[in-house]
Amino acid sequence: MPIDPLLLKKIFILQDLEEEELQQVLQACVHRDFPAQTNIMEEGEPGDAMYIMVEGMVQITKRLILEVDENAPKEKVMIRLRAEDGIIFGEMALIENDVRSATVTTESPCTLLELSGNNFFHLVHEHPVMGVKILLRLGQFLSQRLRKSNEDIIKLTTALAIALE
Amino acid sequence: MPIDPLLLKKIFILQDLEEEELQQVLQACVHRDFPAQTNIMEEGEPGDAMYIMVEGMVQITKRLILEVDENAPKEKVMIRLRAEDGIIFGEMALIENDVRSATVTTESPCTLLELSGNNFFHLVHEHPVMGVKILLRLGQFLSQRLRKSNEDIIKLTTALAIALE
Repeated sequence: MPIDPLLLKKIFILQDLEEEELQQVLQACVHRDFPAQTNIMEEGEPGDAMYIMVEGMVQITKRLILEVDENAPKEKVMIRLRAEDGIIFGEMALIENDVRSATVTTESPCTLLELSGNNFFHLVHEHPVMGVKILLRLGQFLSQRLRKSNEDIIKLTTALAIALE
Repeated sequence: MPIDPLLLKKIFILQDLEEEELQQVLQACVHRDFPAQTNIMEEGEPGDAMYIMVEGMVQITKRLILEVDENAPKEKVMIRLRAEDGIIFGEMALIENDVRSATVTTESPCTLLELSGNNFFHLVHEHPVMGVKILLRLGQFLSQRLRKSNEDIIKLTTALAIALE
């Protein structure tokens, strides 16, 4: 089933694009279907593609504590994300060429658009007017998450200071 | 004294620019001199400009714990940064229009280039080929810091889990 480019309008980093530009993004992506209970990416593994959710539900898990004791349970943060909410993931490895920062597992059958690092770089360099619009939003997206993480650090440091008192 | 545009080459987010493009960045900036012991920006205050260090040394301080007790010392993280190392700060507020995430104080007389949010948006939209080059590096810069913060969260959560055991 062909994907309506206007569906991409609800993705935060694509919200400033015109319909024609959304069509160009769509053409740079590969359509991928995943069955339920499949890992789309695994924390610590290399990977350079970003994914845009078209349909389905995934869960994101992330190591929460270091393994100081082999027998300790590996605690995980878990978030459920649904395609309807305009979800992307893998955007950090896309621009950084680093390992995955979290594991993403399908909870239901999922349809995703996969945008490889190569195709992304090609897209923003070939269409720089669109590139600037995407990259400004990507910068905001990362910056907001950095603020949130820095707030969590302050809260955790405070809790630790109290616990050690 | 006029600033050699090639000096900007050592700034991480400007490293991919040609000399002519560096000249355009320079023209979009305002040259500012600050005496020693002056706050260039204060944590929690609004502000939309980014600063590029040309000369001098600054210290960055950041609230480390929440004020749970009025009499508790306000702990601070402190880092010293020197112009020679190709330093920018204020880049989060530049693209997000949010409050400052840290306080920056001059330790010596400092020469800085101030790039306002308006001038930055104008620059990347007017010169999108250059815009893409700057914004890709800015994305990497933010993404690297986000990874670092997320690692700190794991370490702090581990320490807290041990402290509470």
